Amino acid sequence: MTPAQAHNFERLLNPRHIAFVGGADAAIAIGEARRAGFKGRIWAVNPRRADLAGVSCVAEIDALPEAPDAVYLAIPAEAVIGALRRLSAMGAGGVVCYSAGFREAHEEGAALEDALRAAAGDMALIGPNCYGVINYVGKSALWPFAHGGACPGGQGAAIITQSGMFSSDITMSRRSLPLAYMVSGGNQAVLGIEDFVEAFAARDEVRAIGVHIEGLRDVPRFERAALAALERGVPVVALKTGHSAIGAALAQSHTGSLSGTRELYEALFARTGVISVASPAQFLETLKYLCVAGAPKGRDVAGFTCSGGGAAMLADHAEQIGLRFPGFDAAQAGALGALLPPIATVSNPLDYTTPIWGQAERTYPAFRAAMDREGVQSAILVQDYPAAGLDESLPLYRADAGAFARAARDCGLPAAICSTIPENMDAETRDWLIGQGVAPMQGIHEALNAVLGAADWAEARARIRAAPPPPLCPPRGAVRPSPRDEAEGKAWVRACGLAVPEARVTDAAGAAKAARDVGFPVALKMLSAEVLHKTEAGAVAVGLDDAAAVARAVAMMQAEVTARGGAFTDRLLIEAMAPRPIAELLVSVRRDAQFGLALTIGSGGTLTELLQDAVTVLLPAGRDTIAAALGRLRVARLVDGYRGGARADLAAVADAIHLLCKGALAQADTLDEIEINPLFVFQDHCVAIDAVLKTAAAPAVTPGDPPQDPAWDQPHPGNQDQIHRETAK
Amino acid sequence: MTPAQAHNFERLLNPRHIAFVGGADAAIAIGEARRAGFKGRIWAVNPRRADLAGVSCVAEIDALPEAPDAVYLAIPAEAVIGALRRLSAMGAGGVVCYSAGFREAHEEGAALEDALRAAAGDMALIGPNCYGVINYVGKSALWPFAHGGACPGGQGAAIITQSGMFSSDITMSRRSLPLAYMVSGGNQAVLGIEDFVEAFAARDEVRAIGVHIEGLRDVPRFERAALAALERGVPVVALKTGHSAIGAALAQSHTGSLSGTRELYEALFARTGVISVASPAQFLETLKYLCVAGAPKGRDVAGFTCSGGGAAMLADHAEQIGLRFPGFDAAQAGALGALLPPIATVSNPLDYTTPIWGQAERTYPAFRAAMDREGVQSAILVQDYPAAGLDESLPLYRADAGAFARAARDCGLPAAICSTIPENMDAETRDWLIGQGVAPMQGIHEALNAVLGAADWAEARARIRAAPPPPLCPPRGAVRPSPRDEAEGKAWVRACGLAVPEARVTDAAGAAKAARDVGFPVALKMLSAEVLHKTEAGAVAVGLDDAAAVARAVAMMQAEVTARGGAFTDRLLIEAMAPRPIAELLVSVRRDAQFGLALTIGSGGTLTELLQDAVTVLLPAGRDTIAAALGRLRVARLVDGYRGGARADLAAVADAIHLLCKGALAQADTLDEIEINPLFVFQDHCVAIDAVLKTAAAPAVTPGDPPQDPAWDQPHPGNQDQIHRETAK
Repeated sequence: MTPAQAHNFERLLNPRHIAFVGGADAAIAIGEARRAGFKGRIWAVNPRRADLAGVSCVAEIDALPEAPDAVYLAIPAEAVIGALRRLSAMGAGGVVCYSAGFREAHEEGAALEDALRAAAGDMALIGPNCYGVINYVGKSALWPFAHGGACPGGQGAAIITQSGMFSSDITMSRRSLPLAYMVSGGNQAVLGIEDFVEAFAARDEVRAIGVHIEGLRDVPRFERAALAALERGVPVVALKTGHSAIGAALAQSHTGSLSGTRELYEALFARTGVISVASPAQFLETLKYLCVAGAPKGRDVAGFTCSGGGAAMLADHAEQIGLRFPGFDAAQAGALGALLPPIATVSNPLDYTTPIWGQAERTYPAFRAAMDREGVQSAILVQDYPAAGLDESLPLYRADAGAFARAARDCGLPAAICSTIPENMDAETRDWLIGQGVAPMQGIHEALNAVLGAADWAEARARIRAAPPPPLCPPRGAVRPSPRDEAEGKAWVRACGLAVPEARVTDAAGAAKAARDVGFPVALKMLSAEVLHKTEAGAVAVGLDDAAAVARAVAMMQAEVTARGGAFTDRLLIEAMAPRPIAELLVSVRRDAQFGLALTIGSGGTLTELLQDAVTVLLPAGRDTIAAALGRLRVARLVDGYRGGARADLAAVADAIHLLCKGALAQADTLDEIEINPLFVFQDHCVAIDAVLKTAAAPAVTPGDPPQDPAWDQPHPGNQDQIHRETAK
Repeated sequence: MTPAQAHNFERLLNPRHIAFVGGADAAIAIGEARRAGFKGRIWAVNPRRADLAGVSCVAEIDALPEAPDAVYLAIPAEAVIGALRRLSAMGAGGVVCYSAGFREAHEEGAALEDALRAAAGDMALIGPNCYGVINYVGKSALWPFAHGGACPGGQGAAIITQSGMFSSDITMSRRSLPLAYMVSGGNQAVLGIEDFVEAFAARDEVRAIGVHIEGLRDVPRFERAALAALERGVPVVALKTGHSAIGAALAQSHTGSLSGTRELYEALFARTGVISVASPAQFLETLKYLCVAGAPKGRDVAGFTCSGGGAAMLADHAEQIGLRFPGFDAAQAGALGALLPPIATVSNPLDYTTPIWGQAERTYPAFRAAMDREGVQSAILVQDYPAAGLDESLPLYRADAGAFARAARDCGLPAAICSTIPENMDAETRDWLIGQGVAPMQGIHEALNAVLGAADWAEARARIRAAPPPPLCPPRGAVRPSPRDEAEGKAWVRACGLAVPEARVTDAAGAAKAARDVGFPVALKMLSAEVLHKTEAGAVAVGLDDAAAVARAVAMMQAEVTARGGAFTDRLLIEAMAPRPIAELLVSVRRDAQFGLALTIGSGGTLTELLQDAVTVLLPAGRDTIAAALGRLRVARLVDGYRGGARADLAAVADAIHLLCKGALAQADTLDEIEINPLFVFQDHCVAIDAVLKTAAAPAVTPGDPPQDPAWDQPHPGNQDQIHRETAK
């Protein structure tokens, strides 16, 4: 947002006056502004109606008594541009453009949307094709349908969605989530998700931000906004939808924005400390926990139930997601045991048992003793409240809830009470718990997931603030990629500073001599940028032990390649066979139009698809970030001395990958993709065994004989067995 | 259940009279019977009270006017046995024993519970330490606390739980699940989960059975009850809790880390067509779908929304769990497109768009056209209903819901309407939908998971009925296992009919000759039942190419084993080195006290823990079941010709595993565990490279020189490279 837009966005959020422009839809919106409690002036603009919802109409925008702080525009798309020009000229503040028929509708809509953007000038415009904005704190709404939601304490979540219907569903939800603001952003022609995140993160009444994303329009700016929120201590929770094949297509037709791949979004969220959730209910529950309880310092929880079944469910799900219920030492167990009935077993989670149920003077000391321990970072109690009309026992539940809330306050712990079955906590109880500073969570699974998300956010915040990521590199222009052959790929990789096998490029006649130069055994590959799958094309032979074997292999390859319908290029790569590695990785850097360069590291070789074990990191990324990503892989266990095997230096691997990333960033203008698979990992170094390169122009390094790599030239004693494996794809 | 028990269980469910025996707790239970609508006679027994909840007391059981059909017993544990004897003698029907203080409380409680079982005679007893039973159809309750729940249509779910609190939570849930029966089974001293499953599966008013399991008391009887329910077409949904505490003890062997109690339960559920769910909300939603909509024939769904955001969420989650939204062919797309507004895109899920929203005469034909297609097996519509007081648009939602219900009925499809956010479907709408035959589902994720569970149940039912599993073999007596050495293990495996490497057992002096007999290269291993991890003990050497190498290795091993604190046994195994296989499997059969023998197949060798890729099958199991389990493994892709590699005969592997299982079953009295890891898989056969055996007594086969295996003796042309790999553990 420009400063002028920011000023106007403030006017839009807290308007002194709103002008509603349109017909029936505008009339409904006036009703919603009133429902929201808007006390400022309401104007109506319609050339043919005497009034809208009881508000007398002026015939045209220019007839408004003064420049409106906020405008609700619900007129045909073709009339929007003219209206915006007039509003901008008279100094209006913000506009909700409910009108549809722009980029989302048809091809000409994109041009109309460009005109809309120009006509909006400095105004803060939401939409077009959106529901608008609700301010629950300052009590105003520019919204086209019935809406619910409230912010009783004056602080709560700001939610930004890309689906009007979903934003409406959220306002209708009944789980006592304190809502400060709701924005349905539509096509994001002027203001986008990143603008709203930036603006809401700066407001004291916003305790957490929820973002429903179908596709971001500006990833680097979202990154900066999310990092600003992180810096201010405002957690951002993201629900990304539209990642399935069908969903992505639907998301495009819906708001016309791009729906990127799931992994790139997850990498963006990890980079910026954004909490990623998978379902609408989890989205709301995580926001509720953050708004009411805050973020625990870590994953260690004190858990309480008054039922063995509930304790088991807590423990089951916590174990599954990685939350911990730390046990008691002997002294702690003794002290706690003395506070409990004899039938109770001291454990965490603790079933404090029915004999003391509902007796706050008995349960408070037990809660307190279990919470007031080194290493306990939050507290949770399971309670299912009786349904209305069946609530004879409500005071007993409330007594324990109050004791739990007081113990958590006294110990300074974020606290939640959750029901086993989501709806088994009535609205009055939820509101009462919020008043006690306890998050009223609905469902054991949802509650524990929220605690985990909040705890991990706090950890990520500390880590990211200590070493903030460099800004993402926006892609510079479009790249029309063309594939390079393996020798070119390896030359590119080597120019980045990575080791490749000793090799010669030759023709059929020179193959045997090249093999002798390299040293037996060798691999023979036919070079061709067209042939991606060398094995299937008959273009590879491995484990050739002498000159005769090389000559036979060349002759066979000529016949074989032709027999399989290919063309023999007579450009051959003769390479030293690599010893058996400790592990094989896949390492790739690819260009994405929205995210820039992205590094993917995973299990390589034959394990690539079997393990489905990969992590994606957006670039630029520091060496430590790369090392941490590497450590998260399952294949890292192989690298780290699996089952008594040799141990590789993970730091050396991270260094090599870092070099590749630096090389890729230096050539970001031409690089489309570089994929090394496998990267052979040895005890103190690693070697790129195959490389597939796609660049826009000739690579910066001229292909040719790869220079000798000193580290590679040395034989590796103790690992003399030759690997007989297909390394080309 | 015996016939007498079954008769008395019927009396307990539909009593003409209930005797409440006890004090304050009995008085509450009388109130709950009245709340349930019980119209029969109520008697009260208390020696010191004039009345319980207004019912005049008799002083003792023998003073009851006649033998009660049902008895609610809430007296001290020590008085229970005497009361039961009198009730049994007078011919009472069923008893809910609310009293606690038996097996769950202390060691002496177990004896008391045995006495209780004897005293109960033919009576149908639930408990002790339970909440009891509610009959929502016949309107009666023996229940100690306020309860909700209803069965408006006279058909619904029967739910059996092992946690009284959880059963109470379920009756308090507010999601319109039609509840026919609720049983809280407590200690299961007389009647157990399997009895209730068997009894409820036979009742026409039960459309589905929900079971909350902490632990089964009789796995083979549960198997038979679940299969009986499957045969009758009554789906069983299981929520298994309490799996987190278990498993650590089992984690010593590799199989233990791959397959704990959780996997055994999942294997039992898979064997019997039981639908397994992970959370309480999913438990209730799946039961609701089954009770109202029934089971679709398969996974292909027609999906509808009036929002692009909702369609994307449907598609996202369906893709994740494997439900399918099949697309349209050109003719279908043309026909459907003609029924939709121009802005709509024909797709599945279909966003039918707001211009026709709420107009049943426009939406019915569209719903119908999208449903009435070959291969569509169920239908789902996303609708979030407005909150109370904000429901101006309710008639529009209802109009589309009605059109959807009619289209689904006309096409004979199981149908659900689900809200995006679980609570966004009010009780009145839910009840109205149930009246329309449409399952009112709460939450997109929960709804799709329920559809998947129901569809897979129908598939499993057809498959299991076509080839019912043989009854599970109960373990015969306890086994005190002792470990055997590798030669004994391999002899056992070979006696089952599996191939093992050619080998000799010898001492240090005979090692070189044994190696010559076997043929170089060989592996050398020191045999010892005590040494489980040969590598760490220095007790293995591989790739020995000649007699001198063998002699050196033996000498080194003597020194090495001693240096590492072990004892050199001078019992050596000399084995032929195996060629590199296509894949390595782990295959184990182990004995479980409750489940009998269980087969686990997984990725083996170095991939065992990296892939965590294993499947467990209870025995006896047919060859086809084993082949199907094998096919579900990720490692099956290796076996099946991964990346152009050689292809193994999966059928041959299944045959070999089947032989192992038959051998294990034949020796079920002594076998504790046999683990083959790795089993090398070649093109047309497989070989057990290592075997760890634990048996109670001397194995049936005397260990010694393993006989030569013809299949193994043949060299395998084209795969001559020797594998230099640590095969011992």
